[in-house]
Amino acid sequence: MALLPLPSQQMHQPSVASRVAAVLMRATVLVSLVLSIAILTTDNTTIQVGINFLVEVKFMDVYSYRYMLGTAVIGAAYMLLQIANMIYRTYKSNQSDSSDRGLLFDFFGDKMVSYFLATGMAAGFGATKDLKATFEGSGSNVDKFFDRGYAAASLLLFSFISTALLSIISSFSLPKNT
Amino acid sequence: MALLPLPSQQMHQPSVASRVAAVLMRATVLVSLVLSIAILTTDNTTIQVGINFLVEVKFMDVYSYRYMLGTAVIGAAYMLLQIANMIYRTYKSNQSDSSDRGLLFDFFGDKMVSYFLATGMAAGFGATKDLKATFEGSGSNVDKFFDRGYAAASLLLFSFISTALLSIISSFSLPKNT
Repeated sequence: MALLPLPSQQMHQPSVASRVAAVLMRATVLVSLVLSIAILTTDNTTIQVGINFLVEVKFMDVYSYRYMLGTAVIGAAYMLLQIANMIYRTYKSNQSDSSDRGLLFDFFGDKMVSYFLATGMAAGFGATKDLKATFEGSGSNVDKFFDRGYAAASLLLFSFISTALLSIISSFSLPKNT
Repeated sequence: MALLPLPSQQMHQPSVASRVAAVLMRATVLVSLVLSIAILTTDNTTIQVGINFLVEVKFMDVYSYRYMLGTAVIGAAYMLLQIANMIYRTYKSNQSDSSDRGLLFDFFGDKMVSYFLATGMAAGFGATKDLKATFEGSGSNVDKFFDRGYAAASLLLFSFISTALLSIISSFSLPKNT
């Protein structure tokens, strides 16, 4: 029953390897989110309605894509902040921010951002699947439009899973006196 | 810098009050999920297409609603398991499952189920919003159909937030020797 806590110093100073791994993981998520934003914001097409009536469809016309974009931007900003903070600390003091406040920030940050990405991804997939089925047979332009939606949602899925893993790690790194 | 961990006994034996609160919270989520399942599975309507052509629309026709139902069922089953386990232990040994294994189960269970509920809720809201906009002006039956979708998604939103709170609590209750 009795637990032997590791010495506090050891628990609160992650190794250089794990710090590098965390930065690399966050950088991968950042790249994937920026890619997702790029795919989404350039997603527009022209649909022929009737015989000679063209309608331009932009990603902004799909509410779920707007929300997806919002979550991707929040996620990218958060990852950028985390990476900048970690690099700054590494260069300045060769120490990661392992204060209780830093650990709590990581915990709540990773948790909230992973929920944002999960909901953005799900809204994107859900709307794409159902809208694509609704507009089936509307031509290859429509299919391409929704395929880009799928691509953006897939990148968000990858980002969500990575952030969920980071969130598990930051949960286990929580200050031990709470 | 030095952290003073509480005595292990104290950390691992949640008070009766906090145990009751946890059971009540899980019961509320369970009720809300069962309600959401009931609203969703009875969500079907008839749409008039053209002049004398009727089409029956069921919730199963919307892929996002199927997924939403799946996440609600997973969430309800998990909450039922947690409540049953907690009641069983309270009556049998007057002790909550505060072993390391129990705490890890709570942590990963709450975390995974909260992600499921978040994605189910987001897929439900996203698809409803965009499909409702697509089928705007198709009559009050269609509006009612999607309004029930919103109701189910709202109950999932409540369940998600509650489970996310439970997940924060179970993160802070993680075994301290990891």
